[in-house]
Amino acid sequence: MNFIKVPQSETENRISRFQKLLCAKGISLALIRQNADLYYFSGTVQDAHLFIPAEGKPVMLVWRSLSRATDESPLENIMPLEGLSRLADAVKDAGINMDGTLGLEMDVLPAFFYNFYTGRAWPGAKVYDISPLIRETRAIKSQWETEQIRAACRQVAEAVEIVPDVLKPGITELELAAAVETKLRISGHPGYTRMRGWNQELGYGQFLSGEQGALPSWTNTPGGGKGVNPAFGISASGRKIQAHEPVSVDLGGSVNGYLCDQTRLFSIGSLPDHLKKAFDATLELQHKIEEQLRPGTISGTIYDYALDFMSRLDYQAHFMGTGRDQVPFVGHGLGIEIDEYPFLARGNRMELCAGMVVAVEPKLVFPGEGLIGIEDTFLITEQGAERLTLSPQELRQL
Amino acid sequence: MNFIKVPQSETENRISRFQKLLCAKGISLALIRQNADLYYFSGTVQDAHLFIPAEGKPVMLVWRSLSRATDESPLENIMPLEGLSRLADAVKDAGINMDGTLGLEMDVLPAFFYNFYTGRAWPGAKVYDISPLIRETRAIKSQWETEQIRAACRQVAEAVEIVPDVLKPGITELELAAAVETKLRISGHPGYTRMRGWNQELGYGQFLSGEQGALPSWTNTPGGGKGVNPAFGISASGRKIQAHEPVSVDLGGSVNGYLCDQTRLFSIGSLPDHLKKAFDATLELQHKIEEQLRPGTISGTIYDYALDFMSRLDYQAHFMGTGRDQVPFVGHGLGIEIDEYPFLARGNRMELCAGMVVAVEPKLVFPGEGLIGIEDTFLITEQGAERLTLSPQELRQL
Repeated sequence: MNFIKVPQSETENRISRFQKLLCAKGISLALIRQNADLYYFSGTVQDAHLFIPAEGKPVMLVWRSLSRATDESPLENIMPLEGLSRLADAVKDAGINMDGTLGLEMDVLPAFFYNFYTGRAWPGAKVYDISPLIRETRAIKSQWETEQIRAACRQVAEAVEIVPDVLKPGITELELAAAVETKLRISGHPGYTRMRGWNQELGYGQFLSGEQGALPSWTNTPGGGKGVNPAFGISASGRKIQAHEPVSVDLGGSVNGYLCDQTRLFSIGSLPDHLKKAFDATLELQHKIEEQLRPGTISGTIYDYALDFMSRLDYQAHFMGTGRDQVPFVGHGLGIEIDEYPFLARGNRMELCAGMVVAVEPKLVFPGEGLIGIEDTFLITEQGAERLTLSPQELRQL
Repeated sequence: MNFIKVPQSETENRISRFQKLLCAKGISLALIRQNADLYYFSGTVQDAHLFIPAEGKPVMLVWRSLSRATDESPLENIMPLEGLSRLADAVKDAGINMDGTLGLEMDVLPAFFYNFYTGRAWPGAKVYDISPLIRETRAIKSQWETEQIRAACRQVAEAVEIVPDVLKPGITELELAAAVETKLRISGHPGYTRMRGWNQELGYGQFLSGEQGALPSWTNTPGGGKGVNPAFGISASGRKIQAHEPVSVDLGGSVNGYLCDQTRLFSIGSLPDHLKKAFDATLELQHKIEEQLRPGTISGTIYDYALDFMSRLDYQAHFMGTGRDQVPFVGHGLGIEIDEYPFLARGNRMELCAGMVVAVEPKLVFPGEGLIGIEDTFLITEQGAERLTLSPQELRQL
């Protein structure tokens, strides 16, 4: 496993595309602070203030570790920052022009920092929320980025192959999770998955069996799982897996910071016919959606199509959850975070473009019985969708 | 493994103690939103707005999952919330009085929500940062809470015993991590550790060998480790562990949401004498600090003592990092998050009280050689400190 640094051509291209969006919105300076955004634009997650002007070279002021940031980042202007209280002076010394509109990551920046920047460091600063612009920039993946995502797909395809070896009656969801997670960890998975949404948390993925797969949660997912306790009420629990029930293995691969998302359905022995039929519906819908993943499609129409497809089969009350816990989407972009643009969600009006990477996860929830469905990661190209996840899509009745 | 719910006596006691602090500060209403705080005051992490008035009963408005929140939380007034846009009306309908000062978790609440609450939902609201009050309340653990932490200590003590079995020349840090993490996972560890500090991230802990243990990182820790890539530049990497070098195994146990923190030092074969001597110094300091962990001690004086202790041994340039990457603390509170009050840190003026739980981690960093040290979790009682972590403290040369 190599320690791969982000190439300079990548950060230059990303910053240049982001600067065009800043210019178009009349924002003179963006301040990047959050881990995932820092990694994207600078190649490091060391504690830093990265200033990207609408025109010209970015400047990164690093608190710690300066030596690691300098080693990991291809950016040219990296300088030390001796604590927040010195920020305004350090910015002045670096010649950064603070006169215009300041862009901040308002969806992730804690209020404390927001008030510090706009109240103490630069009182009266005119502020603009640049998160949508960052997410727009990040939505289009380069070839280097899709190579990382492809590697994450290989990582997951290898790890999931341990499931048939270990899935026996009486194994707990946690034991199944541990077996798969061990493989992912040894291959370089950091162990947790970055999500942008506040309070959203995810380890390697979700391991859901039987009726617990149908439990909802606070996360933006169709199923949640019971989890180990109410403090972490998602994914695997101590439940013993039985024969003839659905076992959903939803994995986020992670290679060089880049993710994939894949769900495969297993059972010990055969599934009841009505659940097999439900799985066939999700697989058929997956193929139908794959055909629509091409430049020009409006993201929300894919959700509309999916809901209509499931309604015609009388599954609408099961689609992506039940009752007030239904989630109104069927897919999501992903890259450095698992919840990136575009969202294949109700009312979403983003136009799909070549270079976008999306996870599509048509799933049906049957209370008392479980979660049925599939998930694949696709790259959108000029020629249509390319499926990046590699595991066989079939239901595997062991 | 049982799915343990937080008892009603716990939430009642916590809310009552918090309300006293609200009253003392003249804050009429606290709005709790963040996962860890929600779990503490309500027993659930479902997506909710928990309103705690300075006097009277709390009201929790739940977006999703309402059914799980109702099942998991002992609170009495739990009502549905149909999205943020309905918040102001739902608050009015619930009879919550918004006239006074509104307390918000400013250190973790994203600016987007802050602006939404103070700009759209309740324009002109007078706001107060209640995070210090929450942290003060949480700093004092009940008997029920210390029981969970004791269970986390047992969990870690069992898991770390696999290290002597697997630590052989040529094993990678990741393979060592996976072996220990598997044991933790099967016993109910959620796989990641909650940290309050923004951009701080932690899985099960840190596995650091040889010179990589001496690498700094952006996290508030003496050592960082290289990590799997620059996107996740902490903890284990693909490095192969060799004989005669320090191997630091820093584990955060996690049971029912409650954490412990323990570091033990291993080596394959013997360590060089100067590193053994350094370890002896950290162990001696650990015992000296243990004696000072009693009600009335001012937190910062423990750091001062530790720095002085190490300076007298001429280790000051190695203590808790090197150069500009030194971190000015020797311990931290922990509970639901790994970075709770009190901080045994330079200049910190908090008075230690019975019921506080702190991790003390005197560590020495030797660039090119590694991280040397120890960490234990202690409960402060009227009679002094009780060590909760159970593993033998000695350096284990295998």
